[in-house]
Amino acid sequence: MQTTDILGTMRILGLDIGGANLKAADGLGFAVTRPFALWKDPQGLTAAIGQLLAACGPADAIALTMTGELADCYSTKAEGVAAIVAAVCAAAEGRPVWVYLVDGRFVATQEAVAEPLLAAASNWRALAAFAGSLVPQGAALLLDIGSTTTDLIPLEGGQPRPAGLTDPERLACGELVYTGVVRTPVCGLVGSLPWRGRRVPVAQEWFATTLDAYVLLGDVAEEPAVGVGLSCHTADGRPATIACAQARLARTICADSSMFTLEEAHAGARAVSAAQLALLARQARLVLSRLAEPPGVVIVSGQGEFLARRLIERLRLGVQIVSLADTLGTNVSEAAAAHAAAVLARRQGLG
Amino acid sequence: MQTTDILGTMRILGLDIGGANLKAADGLGFAVTRPFALWKDPQGLTAAIGQLLAACGPADAIALTMTGELADCYSTKAEGVAAIVAAVCAAAEGRPVWVYLVDGRFVATQEAVAEPLLAAASNWRALAAFAGSLVPQGAALLLDIGSTTTDLIPLEGGQPRPAGLTDPERLACGELVYTGVVRTPVCGLVGSLPWRGRRVPVAQEWFATTLDAYVLLGDVAEEPAVGVGLSCHTADGRPATIACAQARLARTICADSSMFTLEEAHAGARAVSAAQLALLARQARLVLSRLAEPPGVVIVSGQGEFLARRLIERLRLGVQIVSLADTLGTNVSEAAAAHAAAVLARRQGLG
Repeated sequence: MQTTDILGTMRILGLDIGGANLKAADGLGFAVTRPFALWKDPQGLTAAIGQLLAACGPADAIALTMTGELADCYSTKAEGVAAIVAAVCAAAEGRPVWVYLVDGRFVATQEAVAEPLLAAASNWRALAAFAGSLVPQGAALLLDIGSTTTDLIPLEGGQPRPAGLTDPERLACGELVYTGVVRTPVCGLVGSLPWRGRRVPVAQEWFATTLDAYVLLGDVAEEPAVGVGLSCHTADGRPATIACAQARLARTICADSSMFTLEEAHAGARAVSAAQLALLARQARLVLSRLAEPPGVVIVSGQGEFLARRLIERLRLGVQIVSLADTLGTNVSEAAAAHAAAVLARRQGLG
Repeated sequence: MQTTDILGTMRILGLDIGGANLKAADGLGFAVTRPFALWKDPQGLTAAIGQLLAACGPADAIALTMTGELADCYSTKAEGVAAIVAAVCAAAEGRPVWVYLVDGRFVATQEAVAEPLLAAASNWRALAAFAGSLVPQGAALLLDIGSTTTDLIPLEGGQPRPAGLTDPERLACGELVYTGVVRTPVCGLVGSLPWRGRRVPVAQEWFATTLDAYVLLGDVAEEPAVGVGLSCHTADGRPATIACAQARLARTICADSSMFTLEEAHAGARAVSAAQLALLARQARLVLSRLAEPPGVVIVSGQGEFLARRLIERLRLGVQIVSLADTLGTNVSEAAAAHAAAVLARRQGLG
């Protein structure tokens, strides 16, 4: 911070406004992530961003990326983009706000609101542009597995080479897979779970999520406190513990913990994780097939780095793995798109 | 009501306490259904049942069935059964409460609380016992498609012949299919939707439900008022209208109404409905294969009677269809398990 002040550089804060989390980073090593259920409390967004900004150091300007416009409190993306931009501007209290677009440009807020389909869901592009600068030569892949979604972005010569820009295009071409290691409902991944020697069809209901599978498998640490960290994202609002995960997974086959042992819960969790890995492998093969040459590097990031490593192993890619968690530290890595926005804005001399 | 009073018969009210709806019926033609999101407000259950009872005529005793114990506000079925029984007893203000068990017996509340796995999810059994009395001879099938779940119960000689009693057993043997015409998430039924000549993988998120598909297809009437009827059960809390259903279905491929025309929404709705019909057909074949002879009658009931008729057509069953909506009227049919509980209790001379 001091260095940049001495150089007279603007202090820029990157913001990534998602549907379930708000993230801020200064691009220099500071980052903070706060859970915020935007779809439940759209009116509270300005205040929540204000609290987030208050937790950060002083900033002269804001570089904004988002995905929260997809939250179902907004009837269209245009409405969501306008609401999020307005909330950020209100919380910014007069400081300039630059909005990152999916075509890689920063624009003023009026232009972003006028081009909502370019401003919508831009955080993957910010992260990909940042990741590209880590691999300036050859073909590479950014593999970002988050709480809710996964991005698979081809990189060539240090630049993102996406086949899709809007979310539906990105889903169709495999570059966005709407599955993650926390919020994904079990019934979206598997049609049945093993139980007492048979496969039991699962309830098509929001009873358990991938978080339960990964807590049971030991990939994600337990959070016993209610309303803290991952416990904010459970299907039933109960803590992210092994015991509660067992009960939630039991409920997907309409059982409870008395009828669904911990061993049975582990078997269920393995089935959920296997289905998610198979889905990701299918889409990754689609994306990799479009690269001119096999990737030399895969940059992994997000809360699901552990799953990204398993995916690379499964795909038998002979690549160098660059972990954003290792490169940036876990804290900054969790807010990697916000970090990327701040870095990109500083490189472009915005302020 | 007057006739039974003259005969000195006890006036019995059947109650069916579900996770999303509370239903009451007197077994004589009166019935009422009220939406109540039990998992969101377990503390409010007694008051909600009290309001339901106040909307009914005077009753001397209550015959109770339930499925609400599965709601994720309860950590086990035992906790759920105990809480629901306690709430009903409190609202009953001293009148006797009889609890129907999955083995077909009515028991006092203490016994039900002591045998929670028999008291849990008993409403299918009450409905099947009632339906059986409509077809005293030969093989028949009860096909009840509700908002959230479907029951497929074999009947022989007027009696239910279930292969499973607990919910996990019933899921495993196909007699319970946890899919319905209102609340089922689209991502639980389809992996992708058609859009602009391709299949786009859907978001594994609670963005749209089967209600949206059936409103779009004209099978379910629109409900434009917020917080009324089916509008209580939409994924985003917005009304159950064609325009809002289009927006919700758009969101499942991360689009919005500006990128996903009404025609595209219809195509998506057809894909969702086709997937649900295929799932139901698979499980129905499983259940029918266990009957000693092909069914002569299928008794259809629930909000999804329209889908039940399509299923019978698809299965090419040469059967007589008996509609509970036609037999009882739509109002009583919607609360058919509560109606059944009242009828069964009266037949057994409970009070």
